[in-house]
Amino acid sequence: MSLPLPSAHAVRDLRAAIAAWRADGLTIGFVPTMGALHAGHIALVDQALARCDRVVASVFVNPAQFAPGEDFDAYPRTLDADAAKLAGAGCHLLYAPSAREMYPDGFATTISLSGPAEGLESAARPHFFSGVATVVAKLLNQVRPDAAVFGEKDYQQYLVIRRLAADLDLPVAIEAGPTVREADGLALSSRNVYLSPEDRRRAARLNVILADFARALAAGRLADEAEADALEAARASFDGVDYMTARCADTLAPLGPGAVDRPARVLGAVRLGSTRLIDNRAVSPAG
Amino acid sequence: MSLPLPSAHAVRDLRAAIAAWRADGLTIGFVPTMGALHAGHIALVDQALARCDRVVASVFVNPAQFAPGEDFDAYPRTLDADAAKLAGAGCHLLYAPSAREMYPDGFATTISLSGPAEGLESAARPHFFSGVATVVAKLLNQVRPDAAVFGEKDYQQYLVIRRLAADLDLPVAIEAGPTVREADGLALSSRNVYLSPEDRRRAARLNVILADFARALAAGRLADEAEADALEAARASFDGVDYMTARCADTLAPLGPGAVDRPARVLGAVRLGSTRLIDNRAVSPAG
Repeated sequence: MSLPLPSAHAVRDLRAAIAAWRADGLTIGFVPTMGALHAGHIALVDQALARCDRVVASVFVNPAQFAPGEDFDAYPRTLDADAAKLAGAGCHLLYAPSAREMYPDGFATTISLSGPAEGLESAARPHFFSGVATVVAKLLNQVRPDAAVFGEKDYQQYLVIRRLAADLDLPVAIEAGPTVREADGLALSSRNVYLSPEDRRRAARLNVILADFARALAAGRLADEAEADALEAARASFDGVDYMTARCADTLAPLGPGAVDRPARVLGAVRLGSTRLIDNRAVSPAG
Repeated sequence: MSLPLPSAHAVRDLRAAIAAWRADGLTIGFVPTMGALHAGHIALVDQALARCDRVVASVFVNPAQFAPGEDFDAYPRTLDADAAKLAGAGCHLLYAPSAREMYPDGFATTISLSGPAEGLESAARPHFFSGVATVVAKLLNQVRPDAAVFGEKDYQQYLVIRRLAADLDLPVAIEAGPTVREADGLALSSRNVYLSPEDRRRAARLNVILADFARALAAGRLADEAEADALEAARASFDGVDYMTARCADTLAPLGPGAVDRPARVLGAVRLGSTRLIDNRAVSPAG
């Protein structure tokens, strides 16, 4: 396979490339992905490039974060197109390890988190954050970047990884990259390709409901009332609602029922047919 | 507190000292301990010194690896004496963090292992290796040594940490240091101070039983017969036997009932009053 930018498929090759950069005193940025890259991922690469001398992007569809019956087999795999997009963005190295490289025979380690990993995504996907935390710890130890950038679209994941890096004393800055949206407000996601044309139109409602929810809280509306409204709107628009809630922006701890008095985040997960969409929005506390 | 060698109690100070050594191109060895140092620990420091330019020893009695009712509160704490011994051995830096430095508010991460962490010590202490793996991952990320040395007396722990480092892609050589023994063969252990004079005399039987067990296997005796003999001898000598068994030396997988045909290890855990002792011996396969 010939790719339009330097690439490594084994940890050894990755480390050799990075060691050469380190020997030149260069800083390293890192953007871990599962491939099927879109403009949201490229914005993360741009953010890493703005901060670091060299940027590594990984493409690895991590089996450990999919449960049986989830879309591991169906997950879009588009390595050639991903490499072209990364090369176009100015990314310096593509790291695309095999599952065997990441999880050789005898692999025995699992990292799990309480705190920000509890509830929300974990309710629907109990092993998801263990799979994410374990692979991200591995990738961060393989790349040893100065900074790693994660999409804010997966806000809970970002907080989990920030916690993971702090708890395990990984000397890396964990940065969040703003969500990139379609013209109608739908957050870019590799899973949007699963949507039928009709579901694609309905999907845009998720962002509208979350934006209304955030605006109501910022205007001083009681949290339990605003949440009830958002939940009702989501139920009317989608085939199922896994959650639609406002949480503390730093810890994802539940808020009280009253007006929001600290930085908060509204988060939603809904179902359209067999596709599951998530999104979130910042809330500024009412003055 | 004034200590007879440079010391750090915060990650920041530790990292500053190590960064200065790294800037000079020096290699770093690491010996993590729970303090109450004896000649076995000092042998690990010697081993690290033989391999690396600078050696850091940590002293941290890790609450996460003690269960309620175990000896966390009673565990001997002798920091001044430990520092004197480390200074005498030529150790370059003592790292003695507080529990709050290691586990600040909001700490949420646990590392657990299957494979070598299953059975043996885990049967009596189900959360032990999670506590060990989590704190060792933190310490290795804080120090980022080239090599870390662990006592072979805790053989299962050594295999767990070797697995942990491989699985999480920690770029560190995990070395085992040979067990140091008293004149009568008792393995040095910080917990030996708990033994009454009479129990101290009985304790030496553990090594004798394990050495006989290893010798029988090396001579070609069937594993299940040799194990039955060792178990009977241990039951006759001690107040309780948690395990007395032969395992695969690399994975701790059970051996078959026949003659040993690959590198093996005999391991035992026994109780003397309220004190628990462990020890182990290498077995060379019969020709």
